[in-house]
Amino acid sequence: MNKPELEKRGPWTILSERLGYENPWMTVREFDVLRPDGSPGLYGVMEPRNLAIGVLPVFDNGDTLLVGQYRFALDAYSWELPEGGGPHGVDPLVSARRELEEETGCTAQNWRKLLELDVSNSISSERAFCFLAWGLNEGQSDRESSEADMITHRLPVHAAIAMAMSGKIRDSLTVIMLLTAAEKARSGVLNPALSRLILSDRS
Amino acid sequence: MNKPELEKRGPWTILSERLGYENPWMTVREFDVLRPDGSPGLYGVMEPRNLAIGVLPVFDNGDTLLVGQYRFALDAYSWELPEGGGPHGVDPLVSARRELEEETGCTAQNWRKLLELDVSNSISSERAFCFLAWGLNEGQSDRESSEADMITHRLPVHAAIAMAMSGKIRDSLTVIMLLTAAEKARSGVLNPALSRLILSDRS
Repeated sequence: MNKPELEKRGPWTILSERLGYENPWMTVREFDVLRPDGSPGLYGVMEPRNLAIGVLPVFDNGDTLLVGQYRFALDAYSWELPEGGGPHGVDPLVSARRELEEETGCTAQNWRKLLELDVSNSISSERAFCFLAWGLNEGQSDRESSEADMITHRLPVHAAIAMAMSGKIRDSLTVIMLLTAAEKARSGVLNPALSRLILSDRS
Repeated sequence: MNKPELEKRGPWTILSERLGYENPWMTVREFDVLRPDGSPGLYGVMEPRNLAIGVLPVFDNGDTLLVGQYRFALDAYSWELPEGGGPHGVDPLVSARRELEEETGCTAQNWRKLLELDVSNSISSERAFCFLAWGLNEGQSDRESSEADMITHRLPVHAAIAMAMSGKIRDSLTVIMLLTAAEKARSGVLNPALSRLILSDRS
């Protein structure tokens, strides 16, 4: 008789799995595993229900827009680029357009994917999609009840990068989006007009 | 009679809390809250037991060292700078020294904090400490049983940045450490000799 085939994840083998916890925003799954060296172990993975979505908006004068809010999970005030959750199965660009408009009121004529990321690597499966948005039109924000304290701060991209480098911005996606946009602008990957906006006034 | 004072987190009020899940690496805490607009809600937070620790090692010729391993939580192969968990209450630099030596066998004469980060912002309280290490001496690695498949890849810092920009590196801490080091080297924050190594051979 054949034994049922065990599920593999690369060099890991899953012996059994069960639900550890769930709420509308996350599932924690618990696995009995064989580790890459064959030894038995336990692995718990926090699986967010949403993709992380981030947007770097660039105004026609080289400004961007930070949002400030108190983050419950971090128990700290946080300045970030517009970010939010996008359901799996929905085009991340659609979620990005919605998130930018909800949080800032802005719509954008031009969008470009900046990068995809694995947000954490050991006990969370969170994945992120980051976008550049330019050709902005300002409108009215429409924030969620968890965002009632949110405020915005418009400043040059290079000033936001300086905030990240000095530790005033601590949010990982925000730091990555700012530095990646500058790196891609410098290396000629982005269109020249957008690159000039991103790099304008840099000392 | 006075009502007992409710715990606040900025504009959030905690009405009650309970344990949702725990294993040796994480706790999930579930809160009944009043949101910033006063409406009632539920908030679950995944609290890792460890700090995230990352190291950007820089060799005397401008190379760095990536480690490659299959990440169970992501169900994907991942190229990253040396990273691991450091217990709360232990100096993050001590954890960084240990992690670099365990994963790569390298010790370093010089260490400098690169930045602190909030890894995620909505349902995880994970925090990260990132370091630059240079003046490297190579030795013997001593990996954990979950790292039996780990391999290393030595390459110039600028080549690692190119891997990040093209999507071949997806780990957020790795992308941040590479770009932050280059940004700080360009802006004159780091010592000149180290800056030249980080920026060497850049096109």
